[in-house]
Amino acid sequence: MTIRKRRKVPPLEPVAGNGLLDRRALLGRSIMFAGAMTAGAGASLTGAAAEPLKDDPWSEEVGALVPPLQVPSRFEKDVLRTLSNPNRDFRTSHARTPHHLLRGTVTPNSLFFSICHTAVPDIDPVQHKLVIHGLVKQPMVYTLDALSRYPMVTRMAFVECSGNSAPMFSNQPVQATVQALHGLVSNAEWTGVLLSTLLEETGIDPKAKWLLAEGADAGALHRSVPVKKALDDAMIALYQNGERIMPGNGYPMRLLLPGYQGNMNVKYLRRIKLIDQPAMSFYEAKTYSQILPGGKMWRFHFLQEVKSFITQPSFGHSLKGPGYYEISGVAYSGIGRISRVMVSADGGKSWGEAALQSPVLPQAFTRFRMPWRWDGQPVVLVSRAWDEAGNAQPTRAEFVAARGETQAPVRSPLAFPNQHYNSTTSWGIDSNGEIKHVYA
Amino acid sequence: MTIRKRRKVPPLEPVAGNGLLDRRALLGRSIMFAGAMTAGAGASLTGAAAEPLKDDPWSEEVGALVPPLQVPSRFEKDVLRTLSNPNRDFRTSHARTPHHLLRGTVTPNSLFFSICHTAVPDIDPVQHKLVIHGLVKQPMVYTLDALSRYPMVTRMAFVECSGNSAPMFSNQPVQATVQALHGLVSNAEWTGVLLSTLLEETGIDPKAKWLLAEGADAGALHRSVPVKKALDDAMIALYQNGERIMPGNGYPMRLLLPGYQGNMNVKYLRRIKLIDQPAMSFYEAKTYSQILPGGKMWRFHFLQEVKSFITQPSFGHSLKGPGYYEISGVAYSGIGRISRVMVSADGGKSWGEAALQSPVLPQAFTRFRMPWRWDGQPVVLVSRAWDEAGNAQPTRAEFVAARGETQAPVRSPLAFPNQHYNSTTSWGIDSNGEIKHVYA
Repeated sequence: MTIRKRRKVPPLEPVAGNGLLDRRALLGRSIMFAGAMTAGAGASLTGAAAEPLKDDPWSEEVGALVPPLQVPSRFEKDVLRTLSNPNRDFRTSHARTPHHLLRGTVTPNSLFFSICHTAVPDIDPVQHKLVIHGLVKQPMVYTLDALSRYPMVTRMAFVECSGNSAPMFSNQPVQATVQALHGLVSNAEWTGVLLSTLLEETGIDPKAKWLLAEGADAGALHRSVPVKKALDDAMIALYQNGERIMPGNGYPMRLLLPGYQGNMNVKYLRRIKLIDQPAMSFYEAKTYSQILPGGKMWRFHFLQEVKSFITQPSFGHSLKGPGYYEISGVAYSGIGRISRVMVSADGGKSWGEAALQSPVLPQAFTRFRMPWRWDGQPVVLVSRAWDEAGNAQPTRAEFVAARGETQAPVRSPLAFPNQHYNSTTSWGIDSNGEIKHVYA
Repeated sequence: MTIRKRRKVPPLEPVAGNGLLDRRALLGRSIMFAGAMTAGAGASLTGAAAEPLKDDPWSEEVGALVPPLQVPSRFEKDVLRTLSNPNRDFRTSHARTPHHLLRGTVTPNSLFFSICHTAVPDIDPVQHKLVIHGLVKQPMVYTLDALSRYPMVTRMAFVECSGNSAPMFSNQPVQATVQALHGLVSNAEWTGVLLSTLLEETGIDPKAKWLLAEGADAGALHRSVPVKKALDDAMIALYQNGERIMPGNGYPMRLLLPGYQGNMNVKYLRRIKLIDQPAMSFYEAKTYSQILPGGKMWRFHFLQEVKSFITQPSFGHSLKGPGYYEISGVAYSGIGRISRVMVSADGGKSWGEAALQSPVLPQAFTRFRMPWRWDGQPVVLVSRAWDEAGNAQPTRAEFVAARGETQAPVRSPLAFPNQHYNSTTSWGIDSNGEIKHVYA
């Protein structure tokens, strides 16, 4: 038997309780030779079975038309965004990303989460215009065609609703998938014009400290953004994963504020007005001002904090007997790159460091992976992330101590905390391989 | 007027003929202050026009339902793959990516190119199996469910048909879009299990030098792959841009051989047989053995060579008067990372270095950008790429001298060169801003 030389075989002793293995095992051959795969994964073939060349039915007929736009297989019909408002009632619509069914870091455009307060506008891109005015030297108007001539940049970035994970404020763990708990965050490659490029053209009056960004949706959603952020990395995004932005994500243009709460990344962007103080719009004065324990409020708290969650295995999956599994999930931070993800299989008593998939990019999803040999006994899986600024994702106990919790899940708890939830998520697995959401 | 301090203002003198500017201008404010944007892009607003707050029609009504799967706006209905076989006749089907309408590096799954020799099989992922057998120590069979437990990796990679760009063998420049000329290449984030991981489990008989990879399509497409490549970076890809692979790209699993010709990245992968010599299958012995001048053949020539093309502006676009434009395109090499892209606006007489969008990843699309101030006179735009191994994309003259050309485009020129075309592509722009494909 000949095998290419690999890196030095890493230690196969568990690095933490309940079977977590050294992440370097992912780089070498030791997982195989340690027999970690023996139960439940690939099956050995012997004798005649080793030449199983009988055709399956689909190999005996000419297939379907190659279509102009590809769509997923009919066998993937359950890989969908879940809708909070499927009948388009006169209220906000949420469509959540099925992270428990995805693997990688890119969220495909069809599954990128949407929140629309007045449903999805049908904007003619030839008629749509972006105006920059207010405390500027020279007000300007830009068509989509005009913007296509300006210098562009391309970058990965997550967008997350600051109300993502709100069900986890409940004092009882809500039994639900990652999609239901954390489905209001997605990650894509955005291409567009830096807002700083346009502000260099308009000039900025020294009195301007904020800008009001406003969308062309029926609610004219608008938010105040510090000029500092506008000049740093704000983008007028025109493309999402290479193609024009999706209607539910701001077609034909949106403001992208990497790392800032989703609501501020104004979709259907039609206007940027430079102003000397925040506009105190509905969404910043009310919905997105977070109530803190003691009755104070977080106002203008924009950054999405460091966070991670395990997507495989997670609620809705089940384990088929002891043996090797890969624990996998996503981590991200509004402040920059992920520096480290630790995983525990014993509810946080002991931790092992997960492998981070390169490239690790700022304000973007990083997939982490942890090799694991399950002995069939009950375990509790948890992940915890750190970012390059040294911020640690809080445990649930730490988070609740600082931010409070609610009596059972509340749908629209304006008087309760429901924003910027970023604690660890724990999955309890019983000896049958069934998975529950637990507070560890 | 206050503007954040930026990097030192770069030189605005052209770096090459016909108005190519220093790429460092993309990082600074000089494009604006040089007045490069004055004509044709954003428009100044004065007086009452500076407060154009009148609603457009779509801002005055509640929009459409937020759907479970998002699709592009109806205004993007022409952003489609073009089909070579729209009636599903009994021949090969090609669906080409519209690169002239995309910007970024990711190709969305709906628009990823497909070539299917027997249309698209309708595979039940629960029934589908991958067998590894032949010169192995232990033959194995893997279901999709089993593979989901093995260690995975995620990476960007382009896939390119080695017949991509074949129309450019014509001795007359074919007047067609980037989609028609170069649409048989696309770029995605793939997630799956390294083939080396599975071969470590099966073991390899020392006599094995090749493997036969076979698909479950009606033609059972099969190719021979060197074991060395299998142990290097070959992947059993299960996910494409985060979701399950598209039906036209190999659902539920394909072989991914980063940098190797598309046909070898066997879709609908059902079998890998380790063998001691190449199988001399139809596709390697005939279609993909390239005729060279003098009648010799390239056999087992797998690598997709370094290549680039300008996507904006390109055939099918037009320039609306003199002024600033961004020249943008994609570059890639089967051998590794792109190290440099040079752009010319005078048909190759003088060149300026383009900016490369980070991260620059191996065997993946790199977007390049070049700032340009067009004076309204006729120009010829060309891009030329180099890879980290030092390979240069050939000019068309260099390419034709080495590889030959054909009398006008030939659809299926088995007796003519039609493979591994990678020369530069040139766009001639006249004083009206109309764009033609030219040989410069």
